[in-house]
Amino acid sequence: MPPFDVPEGDPFGPHNLPYGVFSPPGSSERRVGVRLGDHVLDAGAAAHALGSPYASLLARPTLNPLLAAGRTSWSDVRRALTAWVTVPAHRETVEPLFHPLSSVTLYLPFEVADYVDFYASENHARNVGRIFRPDAADSLTPNWKHLPIGYHGRSGTVLVSGTDVVRPSGQRKAPTDPAPVFGPSVRLDIEAEVGFVVGAPSELGRPVPLGGFRDHVFGLCLLNDWSARDVQAWEYVPLGPFLGKSFATSVAAWITPLDALEEARVAPPERTHALLPYLDDTDEEPGGYDLRISMAVNGHVVSEPPFSTMYWTAAQQLAHMTVNGASLRTGDLYGSGTVSGPAEGQRGSLLELTWNGRDALELPDGKRTFLEDGDVVTLSAWAPGPGGVRVGLGEVTGRVTPRADPVS
Amino acid sequence: MPPFDVPEGDPFGPHNLPYGVFSPPGSSERRVGVRLGDHVLDAGAAAHALGSPYASLLARPTLNPLLAAGRTSWSDVRRALTAWVTVPAHRETVEPLFHPLSSVTLYLPFEVADYVDFYASENHARNVGRIFRPDAADSLTPNWKHLPIGYHGRSGTVLVSGTDVVRPSGQRKAPTDPAPVFGPSVRLDIEAEVGFVVGAPSELGRPVPLGGFRDHVFGLCLLNDWSARDVQAWEYVPLGPFLGKSFATSVAAWITPLDALEEARVAPPERTHALLPYLDDTDEEPGGYDLRISMAVNGHVVSEPPFSTMYWTAAQQLAHMTVNGASLRTGDLYGSGTVSGPAEGQRGSLLELTWNGRDALELPDGKRTFLEDGDVVTLSAWAPGPGGVRVGLGEVTGRVTPRADPVS
Repeated sequence: MPPFDVPEGDPFGPHNLPYGVFSPPGSSERRVGVRLGDHVLDAGAAAHALGSPYASLLARPTLNPLLAAGRTSWSDVRRALTAWVTVPAHRETVEPLFHPLSSVTLYLPFEVADYVDFYASENHARNVGRIFRPDAADSLTPNWKHLPIGYHGRSGTVLVSGTDVVRPSGQRKAPTDPAPVFGPSVRLDIEAEVGFVVGAPSELGRPVPLGGFRDHVFGLCLLNDWSARDVQAWEYVPLGPFLGKSFATSVAAWITPLDALEEARVAPPERTHALLPYLDDTDEEPGGYDLRISMAVNGHVVSEPPFSTMYWTAAQQLAHMTVNGASLRTGDLYGSGTVSGPAEGQRGSLLELTWNGRDALELPDGKRTFLEDGDVVTLSAWAPGPGGVRVGLGEVTGRVTPRADPVS
Repeated sequence: MPPFDVPEGDPFGPHNLPYGVFSPPGSSERRVGVRLGDHVLDAGAAAHALGSPYASLLARPTLNPLLAAGRTSWSDVRRALTAWVTVPAHRETVEPLFHPLSSVTLYLPFEVADYVDFYASENHARNVGRIFRPDAADSLTPNWKHLPIGYHGRSGTVLVSGTDVVRPSGQRKAPTDPAPVFGPSVRLDIEAEVGFVVGAPSELGRPVPLGGFRDHVFGLCLLNDWSARDVQAWEYVPLGPFLGKSFATSVAAWITPLDALEEARVAPPERTHALLPYLDDTDEEPGGYDLRISMAVNGHVVSEPPFSTMYWTAAQQLAHMTVNGASLRTGDLYGSGTVSGPAEGQRGSLLELTWNGRDALELPDGKRTFLEDGDVVTLSAWAPGPGGVRVGLGEVTGRVTPRADPVS
């Protein structure tokens, strides 16, 4: 019987063990949970029941204490959890502490400190350049191959998967409009991304080198950086995206520890430009991750963006983000940027898939250029795991709803 | 004797009463403090000693509980504090709970949630436009008069006044350089700003109208948005400032409640463009504040930026920031943007004062284009108060130090 008898090859088997925060049926008390198959283990209760020293990290309403504990603790806790869900002697103690996934409420698993979003897919950046600057000699800006471009986003509107996304209102102005108009966005878009979760903080004034990535970053999750393209287009010169992004960023309820993704590591694409030493990862461990993402609208897959094609790695992004001396805090979250592969069916945004609305997608329930009210967007993914078993990433999903009280 | 006998007309008299967080000599315990003259009242201890119901808001290590309590509580607590420091019957109880300002340690007075920075001075925006786009027909971008341009910054590197600022390293590339180079910034700059501190949160999906400003914003403080111009110039297209700003943002140790600034309210400059209804403050209370800022390098005043000249008000910035449905959290901080008046001696950055390094400033200790290691930058300000008495704002100061371990 489940959960110990999770089927062989289940992408959420004991080789995976992502972390989340849940409340059991009939309770609103938040607890750290670990997913196994289609069940959730109350990790704090298990630690208490087994007399584990990790109860202080796990019997908490958020992942932050575990995140802050650092890499050695992350490995130790993972080893302990693996034993708890696989060693038959623990079965009698641990089994009553599982809840069916369908019975629990899931929450944002950690308190987000700063949220940064990057722009690390060359295919995405070139598509955007071709769409918005069709006459430019180079579809990339001159800095693109020299540094991972990024900007800060709003951490207060990072939402857990399943939260409705209210269509934002805002200003927009087509080049032909005499003045800006106000109203609900008519170009609401998806950005399929991967988010990296910082665990161990760093000191102000002390950059984290490329080799420090695993000491600071705990894990990753799928992320949808919802974007109002019309709002963004009017506002973003010269200081970057603001209200076009700040209304909602959705993340999966499950954080996959990097320790579960050893077999998914791959070398990033070949570098076409020499990199400054702090970004040069030639002699580092492979910094890419082979994550196979699937992007669906109303259950219909519209794209399969391959994360392995990202030009800039998460380690390079971390090194860049701190090279000016900026410190890291537990709970910092950074997004990879939209993941787009080289093929048309691998583009991670509707902007690219419909070429800015020119080529509508044919879905079973009608044509789409951008998102309509009621649309449900779901990102899911898997990565190669040990012995060919897949490592499943927690999905991130959200339904677009109209605003109840539009402001005029 | 002090503190009750603070001199008549002292800008930190009982009409002011800004809030901070301090620890007394010989202790590292953080407490809410209220400044009176050159003394600090241990507000939580006073509340306890006087049996005040506000002890739960004041006997805390941070201002966040008070901030979260909302406008009615802010007024009630201020009224109580005013009585404690002015009614002779309280003198015997309260007087021992004061500490000389020079004897205490001051801390960042609240936990910063999201940090947003605006660009609301027309003089500043035009100066920047003229410097960087001298051939443009209009020194403002087309959106400037239609919305308060803003972007998110790094809340984890907001520092309290007095904290050293380590010169950031980063990439820079002059147009004539064949490739970017890496090293300490050679164009480290000041941005004289005013920061607004959000107290009461707002709900996701529910914009805060112009008239809701005072219900959500607790107070203001001076803010120095340190900027590495060379880093910023190379990185900021197309997603805005990132590492050129994220290394440090300094704020004063004292938050002046808006209730202390009633007499400083002024109408903003005349609007030259029709505004969309959510930004149209024609029928609102005056949204500007008459704050007289002084900017000094090594004690020598280099500029006196007048806050009353800001085109966009803090209420408009709040309405804009939330009009897409983004929620507010207690501790959100937003900067006004560099304050620059119309005159040369009113410019709030060295970029403008030296016209991007072309015209060096003559200081008593030598010429300056941008900041040198060891330079101490201090912003101070006052506002008109009741009966012609000044309301002093807490200063924000910081010394530039070289990085100990430059990364290559």
